[in-house]
Amino acid sequence: MNVFIIGLGLIGGSLSLDIQQEFKEATIYGIDTNEEHIEKALELGIIHEQAVISEMKNADIVIISIPVDVSLDIIYQTLNTVSDNCLVIDVGSTKEQICKALENHPKRRNFLATHPIAGTEFSGPNAALKNLFIGKTNIICEVEKTAFKLQEIALDIFSKLGMRIRYMDAKSHDKHIAYVSHLSHISSFMLGKTVIEKEKNERDIFDMAGSGFASTVRLAKSSPAMWTPIFEQNKGNVIETLNEYIQNLQQFKTLIEQNNFSEIYSEMENTNHIKQILNGIQEVSLQ
Amino acid sequence: MNVFIIGLGLIGGSLSLDIQQEFKEATIYGIDTNEEHIEKALELGIIHEQAVISEMKNADIVIISIPVDVSLDIIYQTLNTVSDNCLVIDVGSTKEQICKALENHPKRRNFLATHPIAGTEFSGPNAALKNLFIGKTNIICEVEKTAFKLQEIALDIFSKLGMRIRYMDAKSHDKHIAYVSHLSHISSFMLGKTVIEKEKNERDIFDMAGSGFASTVRLAKSSPAMWTPIFEQNKGNVIETLNEYIQNLQQFKTLIEQNNFSEIYSEMENTNHIKQILNGIQEVSLQ
Repeated sequence: MNVFIIGLGLIGGSLSLDIQQEFKEATIYGIDTNEEHIEKALELGIIHEQAVISEMKNADIVIISIPVDVSLDIIYQTLNTVSDNCLVIDVGSTKEQICKALENHPKRRNFLATHPIAGTEFSGPNAALKNLFIGKTNIICEVEKTAFKLQEIALDIFSKLGMRIRYMDAKSHDKHIAYVSHLSHISSFMLGKTVIEKEKNERDIFDMAGSGFASTVRLAKSSPAMWTPIFEQNKGNVIETLNEYIQNLQQFKTLIEQNNFSEIYSEMENTNHIKQILNGIQEVSLQ
Repeated sequence: MNVFIIGLGLIGGSLSLDIQQEFKEATIYGIDTNEEHIEKALELGIIHEQAVISEMKNADIVIISIPVDVSLDIIYQTLNTVSDNCLVIDVGSTKEQICKALENHPKRRNFLATHPIAGTEFSGPNAALKNLFIGKTNIICEVEKTAFKLQEIALDIFSKLGMRIRYMDAKSHDKHIAYVSHLSHISSFMLGKTVIEKEKNERDIFDMAGSGFASTVRLAKSSPAMWTPIFEQNKGNVIETLNEYIQNLQQFKTLIEQNNFSEIYSEMENTNHIKQILNGIQEVSLQ
């Protein structure tokens, strides 16, 4: 089984490690524009060999795990290159544009659009982890457009890696994920920015910041190269979530200004309900 | 050594557990208006005996760990009750009002204003933890107003519990802590609110939310009874931080609307600098 991984970062690298574990016969070929990532991936046993795009004609499976702007081009090239029996999986954080870009591709049935929700704030081959996907949700979009035989192969892999599968249309995926992922990243980046701007003396931040601050600002460590194109592709939904978030913050501020602290209490009490919703989502800080 | 703890929650309970460990001769008396907390604290070995305010005349040390609005009254009563040699420590999250309220109290020199930065999103005796304070910062305000002998007793306890001490005036404490703690809580509560409002089908949130969302929204589990009076007492600073945070969010949104994604990239890259600042702050999720 020849598996090509394009993009040897957290998700691509982790998939590779687990696929090697579960499919002993798999040979993993790595493609990455960053030579240091190739070297590191070879050193860490993430890939067996470096490869180039044209060699993908021999691929059984191609996994594309690169920033979502670059992937629009690369998946097109990949589908043009691979054989009729090859499964091409994309794992990016936005799904609407990629599905739209490929809807009329002659090899659309070789393609499966997925989003394994397993990222952390870290990136690159060093961020790859064994067993990352156990219990994690993998959202599959437009499954009916993928060849049945290739769906089966993909589901077998996802199942062996321990993922829970959810099916969703691409438009709904991008809308919901804006709330539960993209907005979190922006709130975290802007929290980090606000505090850094104010607290020029960094030693003071460090001394006074507790685990709560570390937790809310953790995502501000995330890669701009990955997140900029996500916000660009999901612009409409992201703006909508930001409008609602800013409006809620403004209302909260107004309540404080008006000394309406009984309502402040109620706002927080109502939101405490998030406890029940979050039960089962494990918080992680991995490095 | 008779130690009275008023308020048997996360901080009061954890202090009690560690004091028992480090000072074998200590007898811990617990005061709490919540009878269930008293029973639970007795059951968990957090306190040796229940007590009432008037018994504090026999106290060597009183620790006040209750919501900051209630503590304004209780600390006054406590100082009126205790002996001339008793050390009264407050551990609340705001310091300016309490220091101001007590500045002319005849027993001001018995009082030490502190803020151990060791909270989590949990509350009550069940949230108390052994060794919670190891490596945590404890901010002490207006140390010069406390009797030297009592400062020594307090520092000995804090040192044995593993805390790092930082001295600060009460006004600066409240200003800085608004950025690194209070704003984090509001951003988290409003993030939780925004997502709950939008995603009425809770199953969808659960399925799509990853560790990043769990991390940014964790503080939205916090106790409204504790946080409402903190926001009230620190109103001016909290409004200032909220104004800056909202302004940064709006600017970020405008950049997206204008398709200025190179600037979006720069904003995130600049904020990545938070990595270095946060090194050493351990993120925790305890329950």
